[in-house]
Amino acid sequence: MKTTMEANVSERVHCENDSIAALLRERFSEQSTLVLDLISSPGSGKTSLIEATVRAVGKDYRIGALTGGVGTERDAERLRALGIPARQILTGGGCHLDARLVNSALSPGGFEGLDLLFIENVGGLICPATHDLGEDLKVALLSVTEGDDKPFKYPGIFSRAALTLITKVDLLPYVSFDLDAVRAELASLNPAGRVIVTSAMTGDGIWQWCQTLSDRLSAKVSVASWVV
Amino acid sequence: MKTTMEANVSERVHCENDSIAALLRERFSEQSTLVLDLISSPGSGKTSLIEATVRAVGKDYRIGALTGGVGTERDAERLRALGIPARQILTGGGCHLDARLVNSALSPGGFEGLDLLFIENVGGLICPATHDLGEDLKVALLSVTEGDDKPFKYPGIFSRAALTLITKVDLLPYVSFDLDAVRAELASLNPAGRVIVTSAMTGDGIWQWCQTLSDRLSAKVSVASWVV
Repeated sequence: MKTTMEANVSERVHCENDSIAALLRERFSEQSTLVLDLISSPGSGKTSLIEATVRAVGKDYRIGALTGGVGTERDAERLRALGIPARQILTGGGCHLDARLVNSALSPGGFEGLDLLFIENVGGLICPATHDLGEDLKVALLSVTEGDDKPFKYPGIFSRAALTLITKVDLLPYVSFDLDAVRAELASLNPAGRVIVTSAMTGDGIWQWCQTLSDRLSAKVSVASWVV
Repeated sequence: MKTTMEANVSERVHCENDSIAALLRERFSEQSTLVLDLISSPGSGKTSLIEATVRAVGKDYRIGALTGGVGTERDAERLRALGIPARQILTGGGCHLDARLVNSALSPGGFEGLDLLFIENVGGLICPATHDLGEDLKVALLSVTEGDDKPFKYPGIFSRAALTLITKVDLLPYVSFDLDAVRAELASLNPAGRVIVTSAMTGDGIWQWCQTLSDRLSAKVSVASWVV
């Protein structure tokens, strides 16, 4: 149980975060940038998914990425090597990104006028799910090597994510993973959520993922035009 | 940056934790119970490792387990099915175990006189590494499917863990994972740390793991006898 002082501090921190997130969301709307907060365990393939997306539709869309982490610049370096703007956010030991960190990372510029902005959160299924970053949607990734018991074990993220990607399905022949059971748990936690089965290695499901991004972006742009 | 009030709350919480952890450590020493805090990403094989250990040396040692999680009782159920005492600690959304939670879980009894007590932490590589639970050693697990860039990306746990298990090596033929590079990063972060390469599926490395536990337990018991 938290003490009153701990609860007050936590509430104030969340309130500040949500205010900054609202400003970010407004700015992303003005620029018609679709923003995706990618959340998964370490090593489920967040960076590989962004790489596969850039390879698939990098000529059609202006794509950028912010990558969260505690130890290295590796993810941002991998993405910059593909020719997109990418900036690492080092959290100083913190286990998740927050709106203030995202705002600070965008402040030096270089991310204006994008169609798609990926925010790769710090690896983890609990803390990263709890903060609004001004994104359009939270996307959860679950690799088949992590086991089919994860949705009910980590209900917070899988009930909040508008979209869940089952990743690394090229490894399905070698692991015990009941895809139907996972789909049933995800549907139970989040009836409106969508599931896409992917492999960044073989390209399975990447077209469907990019089509989903395209549809979401078109919807956002048309709403923005209508408001103007 | 944390405010002064946030820093004070955080410091007080850690101080309380360390006081309870010291009492737990004293109690575990009196009972000559070797206590291991298992830390890894979700799905790296913590529960499977405990299962493999029980199958290998469950007749030689009295083994028990506490399993941390936010959503289900699944891990404790799997372990009770093997005939060992196991209790789930549900954190109420919290991303790691702490000494108070461990103490509360032990209070109803049923874990006295054990040789080995596994504390399976909540899945994650950041927050679980930061709390003393009164354990003898923190053991990190890293599955080959998570990628070989993880030690430097999550230096906190890999520099603190006395022992790192590389898990799921049966999947090495199907993934890109440079074992030598991982060994080099681990040695750089923690020169005194040991590395064991394992597969709970094939049994690779499980004998070496159990031998390490046996050596550690013998050392702890002999020190306890000498003190008495």
